[in-house]
Parts: sequence; C-alpha cells; structure tokens
Amino acid sequence: MKEKQQNVLIIGAGLCGSLLALRLAQRGYNVTVFEKRPDLRKVNISAGRSINLAFSNRGNKAIKLVGLEEKVKQLCIPMHGRMIHDAQGNTFQSNYSGRTHEYINSISRGDLNALLLNEAEKHKNVSIHFNKKCVSVNFENTTALFKDYKTKAEFIEDADVIIGTDGAGSVLRKSYYLGKKFLFSFSQDYLTHGYKELSILPKVNGNYKLHKNALHIWPRGSFMLIALPNLDGSFTVTLFLSYSEGTYNFNNLNTDEKVLQFFKKQFPDALAQMPNLLDDFNNNPTAALGTIKCSPWHYKGNTLLMGDAAHAIVPFYGQGMNASFEDVVVFDTILNKNLGNWEATFKAYEKARKKDTDAIADLAIDNFYEMRDHVANPIFKDKRKIEMALEKSFPKAYASKYSLVTFNDTIGYNEAMKKGRAQDKAILNLLSNKTISPQDNLKSVLEKVEQETQNILNEDKIAGLT
Amino acid sequence: MKEKQQNVLIIGAGLCGSLLALRLAQRGYNVTVFEKRPDLRKVNISAGRSINLAFSNRGNKAIKLVGLEEKVKQLCIPMHGRMIHDAQGNTFQSNYSGRTHEYINSISRGDLNALLLNEAEKHKNVSIHFNKKCVSVNFENTTALFKDYKTKAEFIEDADVIIGTDGAGSVLRKSYYLGKKFLFSFSQDYLTHGYKELSILPKVNGNYKLHKNALHIWPRGSFMLIALPNLDGSFTVTLFLSYSEGTYNFNNLNTDEKVLQFFKKQFPDALAQMPNLLDDFNNNPTAALGTIKCSPWHYKGNTLLMGDAAHAIVPFYGQGMNASFEDVVVFDTILNKNLGNWEATFKAYEKARKKDTDAIADLAIDNFYEMRDHVANPIFKDKRKIEMALEKSFPKAYASKYSLVTFNDTIGYNEAMKKGRAQDKAILNLLSNKTISPQDNLKSVLEKVEQETQNILNEDKIAGLT
Repeated sequence: MKEKQQNVLIIGAGLCGSLLALRLAQRGYNVTVFEKRPDLRKVNISAGRSINLAFSNRGNKAIKLVGLEEKVKQLCIPMHGRMIHDAQGNTFQSNYSGRTHEYINSISRGDLNALLLNEAEKHKNVSIHFNKKCVSVNFENTTALFKDYKTKAEFIEDADVIIGTDGAGSVLRKSYYLGKKFLFSFSQDYLTHGYKELSILPKVNGNYKLHKNALHIWPRGSFMLIALPNLDGSFTVTLFLSYSEGTYNFNNLNTDEKVLQFFKKQFPDALAQMPNLLDDFNNNPTAALGTIKCSPWHYKGNTLLMGDAAHAIVPFYGQGMNASFEDVVVFDTILNKNLGNWEATFKAYEKARKKDTDAIADLAIDNFYEMRDHVANPIFKDKRKIEMALEKSFPKAYASKYSLVTFNDTIGYNEAMKKGRAQDKAILNLLSNKTISPQDNLKSVLEKVEQETQNILNEDKIAGLT
Repeated sequence: MKEKQQNVLIIGAGLCGSLLALRLAQRGYNVTVFEKRPDLRKVNISAGRSINLAFSNRGNKAIKLVGLEEKVKQLCIPMHGRMIHDAQGNTFQSNYSGRTHEYINSISRGDLNALLLNEAEKHKNVSIHFNKKCVSVNFENTTALFKDYKTKAEFIEDADVIIGTDGAGSVLRKSYYLGKKFLFSFSQDYLTHGYKELSILPKVNGNYKLHKNALHIWPRGSFMLIALPNLDGSFTVTLFLSYSEGTYNFNNLNTDEKVLQFFKKQFPDALAQMPNLLDDFNNNPTAALGTIKCSPWHYKGNTLLMGDAAHAIVPFYGQGMNASFEDVVVFDTILNKNLGNWEATFKAYEKARKKDTDAIADLAIDNFYEMRDHVANPIFKDKRKIEMALEKSFPKAYASKYSLVTFNDTIGYNEAMKKGRAQDKAILNLLSNKTISPQDNLKSVLEKVEQETQNILNEDKIAGLT
C-alpha cells in the first residue's frame, strides 16, 4: 500500500466526503470525488433540509487535523445553552455546561461544505466532479457505475479503493444489501415524528429577532420547535411533530388556517417573528427522522462506508456532523498504524469506531424521548440543577452525560454513554430516595453521586450487562 | 367486515401459515394458501435445516385453541432438562424448572406441519396450493403475483386481505421495503456464528443412543453442539460455530481430516455415536443465524406480516415456533374484539404483539452470549442452583427468567423479560456481595431476591429506563 500510488474514489462530496478528500489528499493519495448534486458553490441548492447544524468539540478535532480551525471559527455562532420558550412566551436559559468555555456552535452546512471543497481542490491530487450520480457499486471489482446528469451518459470508474460517503441513502450500502454476497446486518429505524424547516428572518436592520447565542427551543411534550442562528441574522427553525398521532400532526395540519391556529396556540412568541410562516410551511418538505446502522462497513479491502452512509442518526444530540467528522479522525489514526493493506485498515477502523457510532445513535434516540417525556418532570429538573452546580464547582471532577458526549472528545461516545447513563440513573435515584437534594452541600453530593455511579456500573458488570 | 364473505390469501404454508389457515377456517373465512415448496406430505423436503424444534407452553396455547392438543402430544418427546456433556465425556442434567410438570418437547417440524395441513384441509373453505412461489405483493391493490414452478406460468391473485407467513425471507416484507410507499423500519442482524445440522442415528435395534428425554448440549465456550431426540430413535444434532473466528470455524474446517480432528478433540463422546458425521457435514448446508424486526407489520387494512416474516429470531431460547404460534392466539383475541375493519384489527394486533416479539428476539440473543460467555462462570452456576431450589420449594412464588419466558404463558415475553432480567441481576449481585449463598435458608433467600428485584425495577423506572 504505497500511499502515493493509490487511487481513492470517494462517492459523495458532502461534509464527510469533502473533509475525507482533503485529509487523504494531505496524506498524498490520488483522490477523485463524484457528487450527484451541482456544485453548491455555484448553485443555491438548500432545500429546506438542515441548513445549519450544531458543531462542537468532536467535529472541531477533525477540523484541527486538517488545519482549518481558524477559518471554521469565522463561520461559527456560539450557542451557550438552550433558551427555553414556554407556552406563555416566557424564556429562560439552560446552559450546556457549568464550565463557561464549553459551548456548541451553529454553523451553515453550505458555508462549511464550500470551505472544505475549496481547501480540498487546492491539492493537485484531488479532482471533484459534480452532477454525477452513483448508480451502483461493484464491490467485487472495485468499480462504480455513474450517470452524468448533464450528458445523461453512464460511465464506469475504477479505483484501488472506493469509499462511500454518500449519506443516509447510500448507494454503496444499497449495493451491499442487494448484492447478497455476504451476511450484511442492516437496520433502518424511523421515528413516528418527522420535521419541517421554517425560518425567522432578520430584522429590517439585519439584526437578530431572538437572542443570538443560544439554541432556542419551544418544548411542548409530544412536539417541539427549535431555532438555530445564522450569520445573516436569520434563524433556521425546525418543527418536530408526529406524522399521524396526537391532536396536532403533519397529516392533519393540512390548511393554512390550521397551521396558523396551531402556531398561535402553541408558539405565539415564535409566530410573532414569522410573518413568512405559511410560505415556509407550504414550500418546504416534511422529512423523516431515521437511524441507520449496518455491519460490516467494508467489503474486503475494496470498499468502505463512512459518515451517514454507515451510521445515520437522528438530530436530537446535535452530533450527526460531529460523528461523521470524528470518523475521519479515527480513520486517520488507523492509517498512521500502517497496517500494510486496505482490508486490515478497514477492519481495524470498523472495530475501533462502530461501538461509538452505535452509541451516539442510541443516545440521540434517548434524547428524543427525554425531551418529549421528561423535560417537565421535577426530578429531571432537579438533576439538571445539581449537574450544573457540580460542573461549576468541580469543573475537573464532574462532567454530565451531555458534557461527556459533547465536549469530552478524548473518550469515545460508547464510554461517554455508559458512564453518562449510570450517572443519570444514580442522580435520579438519589433524588428520588431523598439521599441528595439541590440544597445539600455540593462536595457531599458529588461523593454520593460518584459512589452510586460506581455501584451501578459494578452491578451491571456482575450481571454481564456491558 | 362480515367474516364469512371475506377472502383471505395466505402466503406460505409453513408452521405459522398452516396454523393460521386452520384457525381462520374455523372462524368461517374463505382461506386460500399458496406455498412455494412441494407438499411436504408427498415429497421429502428436509434439507438439513431445523428438522426438529422445541415446543412448549406458548405454542401449546395455540394448539389448544385449534383443538389439536391430544394429536400434537403424540408427536412430542418431553425434554426435562439440558444434559450437559463436558469435554471428557462426563454428563450431568440441569433441569429446565424446579417444578416437575414443567418441561419442553422435541417435535418434528415436518410431522407437525403435515398435521396442521391435514386439519386445515378438512375445512371446505380452505384451499392450499403448492409449488407456487410468491414473486411480489402489490399492497396498494391487495394483489399478489405468483409463479407456478411446474407450468412456469405467472398469475395474479386478488383477495380482501393478504397475510404473509412466508418466513424470514418474506416476499411481502421485501415488497414493503422496496416499495418505499411508507416509512418502513426494518432490521436484519446476523450473528458471527452459523449452524450446520448433523445426526445421531438410532441403534440397530431402533433405540436411542443417548438419553431420550433431554436436550443434549456440549458447551465449549465459543462454539457448541446440541442434540434433540426424534420419534424414530435418532437425534438431530446442530453445530453452532463461528464462520471465520477462533481456532475452529466453518471456513477453516475445510477437509475431512480437520472435521474429524475437531470432533475427536472437542466432542469425543458424540463422535463415537456419529459414524455418519462426514456425510452429514459435507452434504448439509451451513446456515446463517439472523434476527429480523420490522414495523409496521401491516399496510392499511390490506396486508399483514405474521410469524418469522415479521420477527425471525435466533434459536437459543427454543421459542421461534412458539412465538409464531402465539401470534395466532393474539390475532384471534383481537378478531374477537370485532373492531369493524381490517386496518383497526391489524393495528391493534401489532400494538398488542410487537413489544413481545421484540423481547423474545432480544432474549434469544442474550442467551447466545450467556451460553457462550457465562455458562462456566461459578457465580452463574450458583445462581442456577439457587433458582432451581427456589422453584422447587416455592413453586407458586418463584419462577426464573427461563420459566417466565417458557412456561408462564399468561404473561407476554416483554413482561417476562423485564422481570426475569431484574431477577437475574438481583441474584448475581446478591451472590457477588455475599448477601446470599446457595447454603442459606431458602425462605430468607427468596425474600432478599424479591426485595432486590423490586429495587432494581423501581430504580430503572425512576431513571426512565422502561
């Protein structure tokens, strides 16, 4: 595997594919990328689908690896916490961490993708081709069939390895599934909820209509609205709502009047800032919320799935892009081991990485239910209070599950999940037993929480639940 | 939904399909069944794939419903426990329950299927057609395309409802997946192990070579052999082994010499009874062990998946057939509710049933790892001792997880799983803490186990882990 002589074909020039192209180019590979959509730097292709994203430590680790930290920072809008809007229009902020230097960022998918494409194309050993859709992959021969959307011609590309970063609807993954040449474990799981993107436009003077540095959230039990800021003064707003259940759902919000009435009753303060609501609601698609897991990610040393193609997740932990970027970091670490051939490299990569992408998929689903079912629960609120106080008073000794997952990028998602879940269970039970309360001495609370967390982890271990 | 005027088309005349046909015929529906294989009553089609099966209380509940308890009993060979064979050829029996009336049965798939087909065909409103393979289902129009294997002709069948009992490789389920007309959650998960069926033939005088009334098991850590008795004096033997991992695996047992050496070293007492080993090993296929889950099971009131087509599971709890049979009982209960239309009926059925088939799928996987990783663990052995003693001394107050799942058919698999897992965890932790030991007074052990189980269930509930 002499790096410089290897031709790598990447399917998909989205966030993961363009970052991977850049990194592999930096390592000296010959990289060719095919993307089915037009070049987003030349054509506006935002389609009401996740215009902006949450960017945090795990994503930034990858951005540092490719040397773009300063450039990406300029695209970021820090969000220090959730700004919660109740049904009466009152707001209060709940910080993401008791440590002031820990926060997440809102970033434009398009701007970040354009930056990565520009940086990748600065390398002579990278070529990126747009409007070329992958039709199928012959993973035995390491070739892929493409269709040029402009000329309508089909053509076959050959490579030493093919990496599919072609997203949740991956053609490479579909070729594994339909090929039936090996045992391919695969799951697609949809929530009963879908989402629709809306917007809050800037004030006429260009300023933000809501507090800029927060992720706004209007939790309403079985549905919710969120808003993330954009650099142009606007917010991208997302409505999460059941397709068919409950009093309000996407199926029965089928007239302008019903939509307006729904917003007037549930989100009056948001509606006041959204004169464009009906245009957005009627023009933007309603999209599904799915989780995809599969294994193996690779076929021999020929092909490999990365990013959403291997592990699409729901957005409720704000980790989708971060997880895909972290894939590139882990893959890079495995490449550093010089395992001698692609099959060993791909195998080691999946072994190192899959437990973590499985974990973030599960954590993201947990958060959907937690936001839906537990946000209003007093014991959950007391838990959050205690955790913020612990993080503030013992910034080195304590990190909540959210902090472990989001900010603690030196441990994997799987370890963060195990420790975070045990800690959550410990605090909730100690609160329920009245062994601790938010009024107690914090040092003593910390000791009790640590002890109980350790007990829970030990008991699970003894019972073989690892 | 006037029952007598309704035409029900069933795809697949396996165990679930033929039982369902019989039950729906008893209820007065017009039932047509299409089966891709030849009539197993006329042609020997055993293909080295699960010739016999474990039959227990949940399956028997369905057999009672259709009035066949006495006839099925004649096909059953009671197995009171596991007969464990160690590497030196020593054996000891571990009973399935401390209550002597609780045991499982070995039954021939073919004999049971033939009985169900015969009983179904006694009804004038049932017709069963063999050698007709379903190619695809149009679930919008409630029609199915079939191919006649003899004439090679294709034909379309229309019905009021179509029920797919076409097994793990279900064509109806594939039509849902490929149709992309609705959000279809779906998973197929393979273990790294496969299986191969072998046999221990009867003695020349027709007697059994091993103890008849037990499930024989040769546990060897990462692989194992099991044997279930047949009415003709033979045993069907199954080897569970990794495809590619470990010292011995299906990929590297690729010569007669290696197979013999493997058996000589690992299963000497079994090998002594298997002069036909190599014939079986070379002629029978190596098959995969997969779990399938999906949702929704139905499309509107048009089509429904049942049995393995909806929820295929691995065989390690001996519940595959029992779960499929219990489907028919639950479906029958929903039909009794007269919900007025098929869509409401199918929806209510899935709502009532899916949590339980999900649970038995997970329990079966748990058992694979438990058998592989924990059987030799002293604390697990002490747990089993204590549970047998508790069941014997307190037959009404105590039931192990195995008993809850296998014998306690008045509760669903999901409830059995939750209670059984909590109980397992309680006992293992109490043993590990030395709070209980197999030498203690049993009444006091029971109280401690019940208390600790309740604590665990409460703590999980408080933490929202339900």
